[in-house]
Amino acid sequence: MYEYQAPLRDMRFVLHEMLDMPGHYARLPGYGELTADVMDAIIEEGRKFAVEVLAPINHSGDEEGCHFQDGAVRTPAGFADAYRQYVAGGWPSLIGDPAFGGQGLPVSLNVVVNEMMGACNWAWTMYPGLSNAGIECIGAHGTPAQKNTYMEHLITGKWTGTMCLTEAHCGSDVGLLRTKAVRQADGSYRITGSKIFISGGDHDFAENIVHMVLARVEGAPKGTKGISLFIVPKFIPDADGNPGVRNAAVVGSIEKKMGIKGSATCVLNFDNATGFIVGEENTGLAQMFTMMNFARVGTALQGLALAEPAYQSALAYAKDRLAMRSLTGPKNPDGEADPLIVHPDVRRMLLVQKAFTEGYRAFLYWMNQQGDIVKKGDAAAAKEADDLMALLTPIAKAFVTETGFECTNLALQCFGGHGYIKEWGVEQLVRDSRISMVYEGTTGIQALDLIGRKVLGSGGELLKKFTKQVHKACEAAKADPVLAPFAEALAAKNREWGELTMHLGGKAMENPDEVGAGSVDYLMFGGYVVLGHVWLWMARVAQQKLAAGEGDADFYRAKLATARFYFERLLPRTLVHAAGVRAGAAGVMDLPAGHFAF
Amino acid sequence: MYEYQAPLRDMRFVLHEMLDMPGHYARLPGYGELTADVMDAIIEEGRKFAVEVLAPINHSGDEEGCHFQDGAVRTPAGFADAYRQYVAGGWPSLIGDPAFGGQGLPVSLNVVVNEMMGACNWAWTMYPGLSNAGIECIGAHGTPAQKNTYMEHLITGKWTGTMCLTEAHCGSDVGLLRTKAVRQADGSYRITGSKIFISGGDHDFAENIVHMVLARVEGAPKGTKGISLFIVPKFIPDADGNPGVRNAAVVGSIEKKMGIKGSATCVLNFDNATGFIVGEENTGLAQMFTMMNFARVGTALQGLALAEPAYQSALAYAKDRLAMRSLTGPKNPDGEADPLIVHPDVRRMLLVQKAFTEGYRAFLYWMNQQGDIVKKGDAAAAKEADDLMALLTPIAKAFVTETGFECTNLALQCFGGHGYIKEWGVEQLVRDSRISMVYEGTTGIQALDLIGRKVLGSGGELLKKFTKQVHKACEAAKADPVLAPFAEALAAKNREWGELTMHLGGKAMENPDEVGAGSVDYLMFGGYVVLGHVWLWMARVAQQKLAAGEGDADFYRAKLATARFYFERLLPRTLVHAAGVRAGAAGVMDLPAGHFAF
Repeated sequence: MYEYQAPLRDMRFVLHEMLDMPGHYARLPGYGELTADVMDAIIEEGRKFAVEVLAPINHSGDEEGCHFQDGAVRTPAGFADAYRQYVAGGWPSLIGDPAFGGQGLPVSLNVVVNEMMGACNWAWTMYPGLSNAGIECIGAHGTPAQKNTYMEHLITGKWTGTMCLTEAHCGSDVGLLRTKAVRQADGSYRITGSKIFISGGDHDFAENIVHMVLARVEGAPKGTKGISLFIVPKFIPDADGNPGVRNAAVVGSIEKKMGIKGSATCVLNFDNATGFIVGEENTGLAQMFTMMNFARVGTALQGLALAEPAYQSALAYAKDRLAMRSLTGPKNPDGEADPLIVHPDVRRMLLVQKAFTEGYRAFLYWMNQQGDIVKKGDAAAAKEADDLMALLTPIAKAFVTETGFECTNLALQCFGGHGYIKEWGVEQLVRDSRISMVYEGTTGIQALDLIGRKVLGSGGELLKKFTKQVHKACEAAKADPVLAPFAEALAAKNREWGELTMHLGGKAMENPDEVGAGSVDYLMFGGYVVLGHVWLWMARVAQQKLAAGEGDADFYRAKLATARFYFERLLPRTLVHAAGVRAGAAGVMDLPAGHFAF
Repeated sequence: MYEYQAPLRDMRFVLHEMLDMPGHYARLPGYGELTADVMDAIIEEGRKFAVEVLAPINHSGDEEGCHFQDGAVRTPAGFADAYRQYVAGGWPSLIGDPAFGGQGLPVSLNVVVNEMMGACNWAWTMYPGLSNAGIECIGAHGTPAQKNTYMEHLITGKWTGTMCLTEAHCGSDVGLLRTKAVRQADGSYRITGSKIFISGGDHDFAENIVHMVLARVEGAPKGTKGISLFIVPKFIPDADGNPGVRNAAVVGSIEKKMGIKGSATCVLNFDNATGFIVGEENTGLAQMFTMMNFARVGTALQGLALAEPAYQSALAYAKDRLAMRSLTGPKNPDGEADPLIVHPDVRRMLLVQKAFTEGYRAFLYWMNQQGDIVKKGDAAAAKEADDLMALLTPIAKAFVTETGFECTNLALQCFGGHGYIKEWGVEQLVRDSRISMVYEGTTGIQALDLIGRKVLGSGGELLKKFTKQVHKACEAAKADPVLAPFAEALAAKNREWGELTMHLGGKAMENPDEVGAGSVDYLMFGGYVVLGHVWLWMARVAQQKLAAGEGDADFYRAKLATARFYFERLLPRTLVHAAGVRAGAAGVMDLPAGHFAF
């Protein structure tokens, strides 16, 4: 089993030195009391909960898995108790609306806590994580009565929530869904159908579960235009708001999965269940995206959360395990061999993990800082931040999870055969991280969202705003001889991103398949530019601190060394992705479907 | 659970149309009776065994795993019975020496059978697979008495074998091993120590197990120069050659692993066990390489064997599952959506798998054809073939397993969420394939073998022989307008491989870490050139058949389309690997080990 140390020094670097969070909070209404000390105290409490409560039940939760008995889910030993401690500690309500019992803290602080909890036990964090779907959606689109009934219970964690979108025959293509809603005289609906892959669809954590269910009202238009969203509580709240009659929403079975085995993935059967519509009929798709955008940013975090403990484990092993002598002569002459970390290829694997993981942290914390501005900034700033989030969300979701899976695999590789056995816990991180590229929209879906809806859909505007920022940062860094090579490399790729966009945009008019054929390479190209942007940013901060003689010089020198590795060995991967974008559709589309195998 | 169809058409293409196996066999002594009909008959019988006996116990074997009870291993239900059928069918003895009950068939035919068996149940195939270690080693280095005692039993499958190299504190660095051997008056040795990760270290398949154990004779030199190899049978053969006294070699435990759960991975404890030395004292390392080279070629096959059913599953799902409409308008207007395979990115993922899998098959069958020549060709031809095998073995082992793991993961991705649950079997293929980059020498170890021992160690000679072949093939193909773009792309990369070798060779003199820092990128670069070589070869054959109007034109056109995809979208990955080789050691070596985390 792995031992996780919260990377507090690196977190502080990003929060304070790169993003100046206390200054940022001071500029936003309602966050002014969040001084550095208060931030530190909350992070420290979150760390304790993660390490002391969640980590000890991570491996055992994977081994034991969930149980399905008598129509109900029993979670692995310790999971329900951990949830009670979580609620008692006030963690569910951190970012919740104070009008409904929330603490009103910024998402940019919550993400730090979530990173640590996720690193210690991703499967467990999925239960409370899904509650946010209901909170976001009812908060944005619910009636005052619905808010009164559900918001406080969800925010305080007394109840939990789910997202019920997928059916056996349709996932990404949600317009095909068949779950039916029939309007009743009292304004409620009867919901009938079957949903699959419902994370936290049942459990033994809380007294009620609020399912957010996509269904089609009788007579509604076909496709996505005829979808509505319903609140379907496990127990229908009575007049006092307490769990009342058991609703006809029952678990049919749970899935056996590759990983995240502590998280119950349920088939949920609705048989004339009572549902309450959110907003108007046939506006469910927009409401789904309210939930989904939140879920996608949360899934991006999985890439970071699992790569960090994987890296820590691999690093500890590489320092401890003796094998072979260094190619340049013994480094541990008194031992029978040198530690693995003397070997260049082991260092390469560690540095890939380090450069990605620290890059993800900077990227995602920065994105969450934009999330604060969307929520609390003035209209103009909120619009800018929202545009940036719109562009970066599919990149964060797909790029961080794809390369995050690479990181957990490289960590396993550093262990050799010991990585493949369960003892060290790293193979669990590989299995747990594999789902991240799939759920809440696969990498392919994110890529179409990026190039289609976000980039071409905005006539290139969203992208231009971002590449302009990158361009400015590169210009500013060019004068510094240490930063100049990074800035030049990044500036070239940033320009090329624009060129690739023009290229695909032009081709799209002739043949939309050109967009699809290059879409994932396009997204990955963009991901390396975005990570390059935050790496240049971090390098500039480190360089300034070194020049000023402030703080721990070794830390800043390590930052610069990792930045160098990023620009030398990871940014060049854009070469292949650019080739993929430019290769065109014919090579992908010309082979008839019947000729893929003979 | 996946359904596997042996890719007979593609196998025949490689065996007959590309490699002209019947002609090849006719030229080698002892293989002359292997006509196309005989080949087909053997392959068909192998297919039946794989599909009818091994496939049905693959998923259940993964679910059940192995049991360790009362000091012995019980394999999953059906495994032992399948082994009895395997022995009854004569499969173990296919390539065995006829002097010891073998059928004396070529390895190039065996590999086809092994591919199908591995595709249907990799975990199961590991038990008989490991017997080859003993057969190869005793056959090459054993005394006549040892051969008489062990060869026939191993070749006929009456007994099985293991390789016992790894100890808890040492894997790749076998020179650190501590297992001790004490010479006895009767010429035997007493072996004491503990070995881990012993595949098939115990089972319920056969009446005896022959462990090939590396140990250090008392007083032997330190490191790899003091290693000897011993035969340590589970039951010591009596005077009649039957299993006699139980030896003090007992299983301590079995590992819980990420995958290949049907294969028992044992801790084996030797407590003054009786061992018989193979060859001279302190020559164990060379003997280990006799076993290891065989094992490495076998592990490369795992990349192919698991990528093929993964691809087949993903393809079947992509044709069947309906989601979204094609970007260019409905292709299945009567259905509620189009099948996944209309979508460019799904096609891209399928074509990556197809281009790799068919490329592996051509590569590995060709390598095994060289293996026939090593065994049966005249001295000069055998030397040439052996040189080629020496160069290609680390590439086959590392490149095919690394990209093979990518293939199983892409297959999972084609399934979306359905790929992550156990039902479809593809997640098992991901888990089972993950070990292939680790055992029998990690990718990093293969890379050092390639650049250090094979390329620089031969003064570049081994590589030059190969790149000359590639150069000639490119020259020959340039006249054909269809093949010319492939040939030009490959010729450029082939030249660059030479340049990268000069570059690393030059740097190696100044600083050996330069070699280590670029070694894996160097190997992967070479892998893309080797696969490019066989793809150009296959494309040329397809083009000739089309020109001659022979056979099924659709098949040959699909081959050319896949070749095009390879050269357009996979060969360009060399860009990144070249950048990695040229990036140099400083960016990898400069960060002090203590500064990887703060």
